[in-house]
Amino acid sequence: MYQPIVWNKDHIRILDQTKLPHQEVYIECRDLETVADAIRRLAIRGAPALGVVAALAMVLASQRSSCKNREEFFRELNHNSAYILMTRPTAVNMKWALQRLTDTLRKTDTGDVNHLKELLEQEALAIFQDDIEANRQISAYGQELVPDRATIVTICNTGSLATAGYGTAFGVMRAAHEAGKKILVVSCETRPLLQGCRLTAWELQKNNIPFVLITDSMAGYYMKKKGADLVIIGADRIAANGDTANKIGSYGLAILAHHHHIPFYVAAPVSTIDCDTCQGDDIPIEERSPDEVTCIGNQKIAPNGARVWNPAFDVVPYCFIAGIITEKGILRPPYTESIKKQCGNVRPRTMVN
Amino acid sequence: MYQPIVWNKDHIRILDQTKLPHQEVYIECRDLETVADAIRRLAIRGAPALGVVAALAMVLASQRSSCKNREEFFRELNHNSAYILMTRPTAVNMKWALQRLTDTLRKTDTGDVNHLKELLEQEALAIFQDDIEANRQISAYGQELVPDRATIVTICNTGSLATAGYGTAFGVMRAAHEAGKKILVVSCETRPLLQGCRLTAWELQKNNIPFVLITDSMAGYYMKKKGADLVIIGADRIAANGDTANKIGSYGLAILAHHHHIPFYVAAPVSTIDCDTCQGDDIPIEERSPDEVTCIGNQKIAPNGARVWNPAFDVVPYCFIAGIITEKGILRPPYTESIKKQCGNVRPRTMVN
Repeated sequence: MYQPIVWNKDHIRILDQTKLPHQEVYIECRDLETVADAIRRLAIRGAPALGVVAALAMVLASQRSSCKNREEFFRELNHNSAYILMTRPTAVNMKWALQRLTDTLRKTDTGDVNHLKELLEQEALAIFQDDIEANRQISAYGQELVPDRATIVTICNTGSLATAGYGTAFGVMRAAHEAGKKILVVSCETRPLLQGCRLTAWELQKNNIPFVLITDSMAGYYMKKKGADLVIIGADRIAANGDTANKIGSYGLAILAHHHHIPFYVAAPVSTIDCDTCQGDDIPIEERSPDEVTCIGNQKIAPNGARVWNPAFDVVPYCFIAGIITEKGILRPPYTESIKKQCGNVRPRTMVN
Repeated sequence: MYQPIVWNKDHIRILDQTKLPHQEVYIECRDLETVADAIRRLAIRGAPALGVVAALAMVLASQRSSCKNREEFFRELNHNSAYILMTRPTAVNMKWALQRLTDTLRKTDTGDVNHLKELLEQEALAIFQDDIEANRQISAYGQELVPDRATIVTICNTGSLATAGYGTAFGVMRAAHEAGKKILVVSCETRPLLQGCRLTAWELQKNNIPFVLITDSMAGYYMKKKGADLVIIGADRIAANGDTANKIGSYGLAILAHHHHIPFYVAAPVSTIDCDTCQGDDIPIEERSPDEVTCIGNQKIAPNGARVWNPAFDVVPYCFIAGIITEKGILRPPYTESIKKQCGNVRPRTMVN
């Protein structure tokens, strides 16, 4: 079994997802900058995985730190958090993880920097472990929704590669498969960066889960001609009203599912819910380089100078979502209430911006 | 100005669209087999262009023919028609053009094979000329529908490359632009073979028409975030009830347009209407090689052995179509009536199957 993220005391070993499915190459990240670079070029991606990696990156940075007192330590931590957060503005799990680190450390009153560094590593590893556990819980709750002989449409990658372990939406499909249900996964290829084609198809194959690969443009016609029982996607950020930011294409998929009366689910850990963001329109949407659209690998596919729009994400309005599968259970509409009930105790995130 | 199809007495010169937008390479087709091969690998594509090329291919075949009498001539013509028709089952314009050739020749009672060959060439060139004229008329009618400062979403390629000349849906946009209207074309890249990205973007650039290129998965979110005034597509076959087969992705685009209250138009010559086909479900949909999805150019993007679904077309139900723009005017719902009125005099196509 491959492990996309491995913590090795003084470095993070990351499976370089830009090389998949053809090569399984690992990157050794020994400093913050290498992690930031890996995140920026999507060698590692997926909201839960980004949370874990951002936390571990703080550990790497602290190991090289020469700060001498508690105040300096926290100043540096905040600075490094802000630096890594700039790499991807949409996924909220990085912000959540960094906030959790800061909150935990602030609860102790120690002035011993080495002790703070130890606590930082402990908490980062706890975040790592918690994500694996959350995946398992999400998958257990979610697989109950999957009937036997189900056809499940999904987009992008939400498997081991996108998380610390088992996967979110992918985890639900995996758990249904492991429970002995016959399922067929319809994997949308997920342009521009083909995570569905390169990563999800690869993971499905590794796990012997039957699947069929389609271009994103085929999803509607697939629903009409072949039928589907549910659509399930991951999330990069869920607003307080249930609006869900996810990979570009998710919005269209939700409308197509709605038109064909196919229930549409989101699977994500509670850390993806951002109660500070009221609604989808408030979620910052990352726009990435036009090259992602005009080139595939090193191959140019558009004429020189073509103007491109390349948002990495879109937002699925809450009204299209049948349920949000979390490790605490399945949240149901009205989301403003079910989310508040779930996250009511979370205090506003103001320290890490 | 490039000419995608040129007739040169003993050969057809075809711009190889598989090489665009990077190289402008022409193929000289001197026999039926070379034309069939060019059609099969999409060096030439687009329903109206296929009609023209299929007719010219019959001329090439007749030039090499050694048949000695009228009966042999027609037997060979039927045989060659059936051969070329097998290359692409969905677009009806080839069937229409070949039927027109046969019908015209049968009207004469000459037994002189050389005379029949001359008539065949004349009629094929008339089909060529008529398509250019039809494009102009479609564009003139269609551009009336385009408001000033319009954003127009389109998929695939319907320009000069897809026709004998001016284009269908592309022609409408071109005519609006030439009429001095400020338009912005949103070109969906059109996976798997990227005709929107490679061909439409290239044609838009050549004609200085402002455009933005998006992946197919961005169309819905574009409509929501930026807005659009109309969607306009071409057609490969229109059934008697108005159901329209077109490039895969058209069905999803129609649902997205419907959801966002954006009028959705089809632009095609009357030769694309097939009154023998009652409804969309009766249109044969070509499924092409999985390699088109798993490879881009020579680059493999999916894991080996991935199972793929690759329909080249889908069907837009008539209820989503605001109007069908033809060279005879704009057909409006109910299409069963407006199409019957337009094509009522067409006798059943039974000779060429």
